[in-house]
Amino acid sequence: MSHPPRINMAALKQGMEAEGLDVLLAISQETFFYVTDTLLLSQKILPTRLCMAILPRDGPPAALVCYCEELQTRQDSWITDIHTYLEFQESPVKVLVELLKARGFGVARIGIEKGFLAACYVEELAALLPEATWVGADRVFDTARAIKTDTEIALMAEAARLTEQAILETFEEAKPGDTEKEMADVLCTRILNAGATSHFITLAAGANTAINHPFPGSKPLAQGEILRVDVGGTFKGYQSDLARTAAIGASTEEQRSTYKRLREAQREAIAAARPGVRAGDLYGSCKRALEQGGLSITSQSVGHGFGIGMHEFPVLHANENAEIKPGMLLCIEPAVKDSQGFLYHIEDLLVVTEGDPEILTTVMDTEVLFIIC
Amino acid sequence: MSHPPRINMAALKQGMEAEGLDVLLAISQETFFYVTDTLLLSQKILPTRLCMAILPRDGPPAALVCYCEELQTRQDSWITDIHTYLEFQESPVKVLVELLKARGFGVARIGIEKGFLAACYVEELAALLPEATWVGADRVFDTARAIKTDTEIALMAEAARLTEQAILETFEEAKPGDTEKEMADVLCTRILNAGATSHFITLAAGANTAINHPFPGSKPLAQGEILRVDVGGTFKGYQSDLARTAAIGASTEEQRSTYKRLREAQREAIAAARPGVRAGDLYGSCKRALEQGGLSITSQSVGHGFGIGMHEFPVLHANENAEIKPGMLLCIEPAVKDSQGFLYHIEDLLVVTEGDPEILTTVMDTEVLFIIC
Repeated sequence: MSHPPRINMAALKQGMEAEGLDVLLAISQETFFYVTDTLLLSQKILPTRLCMAILPRDGPPAALVCYCEELQTRQDSWITDIHTYLEFQESPVKVLVELLKARGFGVARIGIEKGFLAACYVEELAALLPEATWVGADRVFDTARAIKTDTEIALMAEAARLTEQAILETFEEAKPGDTEKEMADVLCTRILNAGATSHFITLAAGANTAINHPFPGSKPLAQGEILRVDVGGTFKGYQSDLARTAAIGASTEEQRSTYKRLREAQREAIAAARPGVRAGDLYGSCKRALEQGGLSITSQSVGHGFGIGMHEFPVLHANENAEIKPGMLLCIEPAVKDSQGFLYHIEDLLVVTEGDPEILTTVMDTEVLFIIC
Repeated sequence: MSHPPRINMAALKQGMEAEGLDVLLAISQETFFYVTDTLLLSQKILPTRLCMAILPRDGPPAALVCYCEELQTRQDSWITDIHTYLEFQESPVKVLVELLKARGFGVARIGIEKGFLAACYVEELAALLPEATWVGADRVFDTARAIKTDTEIALMAEAARLTEQAILETFEEAKPGDTEKEMADVLCTRILNAGATSHFITLAAGANTAINHPFPGSKPLAQGEILRVDVGGTFKGYQSDLARTAAIGASTEEQRSTYKRLREAQREAIAAARPGVRAGDLYGSCKRALEQGGLSITSQSVGHGFGIGMHEFPVLHANENAEIKPGMLLCIEPAVKDSQGFLYHIEDLLVVTEGDPEILTTVMDTEVLFIIC
């Protein structure tokens, strides 16, 4: 496919310059897709089937994929210099090293994803190309990916809208007595029908809400309990990720009040997402607002950058010193427990602008606790 | 949860002895679940949230999980010695090293998954515990996991049956003119409704079948084309993985004949799956049978071991010298192209016994090419 890359290649090159890299390798599913526009299911379900993009600081990029992924890569990528290896017959790392040598990178500074790439491959690289310097360059990708292009923002706004619509319809249709799994299946089906190629879901009622990532089970939604859902799909390679909370049957005064204070604290964190602010300060804003409302934050982060990956840089935890910048897409998702131990959770998506942040998830009215009845 | 481990712990201990390991660490989602019975969604969607099991060759096991995964781990695991770390506040690897030291493993031979664990963590381990020897022990897990317990075989036979039933019903209901995505969504919904917590799907018609892992798209199923589906779900932590092929509207003589020869070659490979045979010879059997029928095998492997992971040891490629053993679960899945370039693909699940292999996927009659009409 002959089209320009969807992403900000200049930011990647800038990161390479800052780290003094001669060449950068994209090997995880996320960075390979980011760089090549090619979303390979293999990279998700068969991680030993390595596929790699080679990005020289100066000069044209190349890709190296398993022979069986060549057709899709040629169809989907803007990169035209595509090489293949024969799985089980030759080592993909060895073929990669030959390509690097042929391009003059035998003694170069080479950026790799040390936070992703399994140790066995890094050991093989070091053994086959002993004079190269292998630099952990995860942050080069993270930093470039953190600032979304307009195309990316449009894709993700649409993914979020479709997902929120699916949640709203499922909440409106669900009834006390439905099981967690029944409700989850209805919601996942809606997300697939909206165009997602895959999805994740955590959905729980009552005491199960306290599990961090509960798999929906056979428990029926019982009157008086809290329901929590955290769900998303993959749309054209980009994620959606939203959390919503509801009361089942009717809500108590405590439930409405807990929800209201959570929602207010979330909005304070959202309002704080402005250029120049330290990412960790968003965590601080939210934690303080909750404490002022007599609640405790339950997690070590209050959100995260978001895109092709689920939790992208920057993660909004107390120790994160990264600066919030225009073009960042952030999920803000505090959670709190009530006196019964039920967990409340709201997650929305925003884009950082030069001024006020713009919330992209506006399908549901989340000001008042939803009642499933 | 107090119950004995579902798995064959003796085989793991035997592998540790053979490698001279003092302790073995299970850190991937697959091995952590295998060892602890705890399936953590985080390990799939947030790979930096490390969760680890510590298996001494002599002595009781322990687990180290992120603080937010403690509740689920205590509920699901038979391991009772559970430790936690505070995400973003402390390094999980550092906490792990303290636990290893406290157990006397400061200068031990420690088995890790070098084929999974990202290089940055292995570098951190080596720096924090310089006198330990870090051994790539992926094969210890692979070998133990390859021989399934009766509980595992029963779980996976049921997962396969449910998935095949979902495929059959979807094939019976589909009509020419439906889009790939519509058909895929119906099938995925059935798999979720059958109890799966997640799924993967590749489904394509006509020329799209030639893509290795095609995402279902907006293309309608057209008369005269071939439809190929390769699909599976995760049931109680174990996978299903099945491929089926159909003709759309009606079948031509060439299509029926191509399918018949593929199916015959697949059955030859299945019949060859007997104790003592070299895994690579199953590839050879299938390739030869196809060639005798005037067809060429399209892939470098003809199947794989199967369980918690998608492609488990042994993968059935020409160079694999591992021996087929009773208790192995194998997917056998050759594929061939016809003169139009349409790809035909059949994948079934079998268990290796002392005698003939037992095919576990018997819901559909796959002897004759299915017609979607």
